[in-house]
Amino acid sequence: MNKFQISDPNYESRIRNSFDKQEAMKTIGAKLVKVMPGEVHIEFSFMESLTQQLGYIHGGIITTVVDTACGYAACTLMPAESEVLTIEYKVNFMSPAKGNRFKGVGRVLKPGRNITVCSGDVIAFDNGKEKIVATMLATMISVGKK
Amino acid sequence: MNKFQISDPNYESRIRNSFDKQEAMKTIGAKLVKVMPGEVHIEFSFMESLTQQLGYIHGGIITTVVDTACGYAACTLMPAESEVLTIEYKVNFMSPAKGNRFKGVGRVLKPGRNITVCSGDVIAFDNGKEKIVATMLATMISVGKK
Amino acid sequence: MNKFQISDPNYESRIRNSFDKQEAMKTIGAKLVKVMPGEVHIEFSFMESLTQQLGYIHGGIITTVVDTACGYAACTLMPAESEVLTIEYKVNFMSPAKGNRFKGVGRVLKPGRNITVCSGDVIAFDNGKEKIVATMLATMISVGKK
Amino acid sequence: MNKFQISDPNYESRIRNSFDKQEAMKTIGAKLVKVMPGEVHIEFSFMESLTQQLGYIHGGIITTVVDTACGYAACTLMPAESEVLTIEYKVNFMSPAKGNRFKGVGRVLKPGRNITVCSGDVIAFDNGKEKIVATMLATMISVGKK
Repeated sequence: MNKFQISDPNYESRIRNSFDKQEAMKTIGAKLVKVMPGEVHIEFSFMESLTQQLGYIHGGIITTVVDTACGYAACTLMPAESEVLTIEYKVNFMSPAKGNRFKGVGRVLKPGRNITVCSGDVIAFDNGKEKIVATMLATMISVGKK
Repeated sequence: MNKFQISDPNYESRIRNSFDKQEAMKTIGAKLVKVMPGEVHIEFSFMESLTQQLGYIHGGIITTVVDTACGYAACTLMPAESEVLTIEYKVNFMSPAKGNRFKGVGRVLKPGRNITVCSGDVIAFDNGKEKIVATMLATMISVGKK
Repeated sequence: MNKFQISDPNYESRIRNSFDKQEAMKTIGAKLVKVMPGEVHIEFSFMESLTQQLGYIHGGIITTVVDTACGYAACTLMPAESEVLTIEYKVNFMSPAKGNRFKGVGRVLKPGRNITVCSGDVIAFDNGKEKIVATMLATMISVGKK
Repeated sequence: MNKFQISDPNYESRIRNSFDKQEAMKTIGAKLVKVMPGEVHIEFSFMESLTQQLGYIHGGIITTVVDTACGYAACTLMPAESEVLTIEYKVNFMSPAKGNRFKGVGRVLKPGRNITVCSGDVIAFDNGKEKIVATMLATMISVGKK
């Protein structure tokens, strides 16, 4: 069922340590809820401090969470001493980010020793209804040991 | 010198009012420093609460600021009762977001009654040196009155 | 099983007529092999006239085919008198476009009366092996009657 | 005036040799009209064989030309034995590709030993009028000797 090969069996604790150093994730109130080979889920709840002018979550905050999920999804497949950086991403916003809870899902589409391509989605949970609010296509690069 | 036509002479106060409603901008400590037809500048200073695991500003926060600058750049050319939403954007990260101060610049590349294409940059100021840390290409849509 | 609503029951013949007017598709030797609500497949075979300097299919040709598949995927859900135009797309190239046959698949991710978001892939068939060579995330706009 | 450093003084002949191997460029009737450090121009004329259903040049053909211009722009700054590949690009279409002649311009925004970020434009010449029809933001990678 799991189509990806890991090279560091301690990938989850490595990623959790890195996530805990991200002060931006604390500011957003984001939690790392799932870490598996090639896929990472990050959740956060609505806070007024994250809104744009219409009262929805700012698209950039949505992007921050799914970028982080995609970066760590790539990271799950990397050796212990490497670091993953975002080269670039594209995000399409499909619905206003309206809801009480949000989940960013990052997935590896194409792993690579150097370049990893990921896709991601952000799902809004609004009074029991789920809706995809944004979708990302991202390019990550591994730096350090390969 | 100014190549764009405005349709709302009060565009600046309209945009400043909207910016002041963005709680995410307060969380980032962002200030609207320049608003002119087709171009908007937003600045913010380094805060630890905005960092990723290496201590630089999170790429998503960089994106949030330049997305806002691009959206308001499109907004300068719109009628008074319209609202601008981001359909999508792509961002390339060119250097780590290292510095004490950052400026997001949004510019209209191609105005339109419905769709506006914008480009943006984020410049880091690091001990007197300037560096472009990210560049954006974005598509905005005008909703409401046109 | 079919999650999309069509508004023009004659969508397939409308799209086949439009495809037949695309001289670029003839130059590429592309065939419209599947047209269903929200999804379109286009195939073509290797021709030396489509190659880049290393002898693989040029990435821009790959893009041309999957752009067309995405545009017509959006088109399947549109009213009879509308026209779909590409606002923008992003393409990631995941493997060299090496093979004897190629299939571009376009799918609607988020339909809309005005804006439709699509994703697409190009699959290379190389001596019986399949490989995704490129993936697209695209924004389409409906013009004319809505 | 020239802000980029070259490492191969024979970059122009190297690029012209590579361009001449691109059969896709012949199919499009494209000519390499300018090669300078960090910037490459490619021109082609209207041909019916390159059109979409409305009789304009297909957006994918426009993309093919500006992708090639961006790739060679990156190539001008690379060592003699390296090869440049496109990782990904985003293109915004700003006007229909209507005209009798077209020029794709590729420029290096941020050079790098490994990753180079480029931007590009395609300009249509239509009865003496110039119009930007598309703009690209692209990520290139250098493979082989660095």
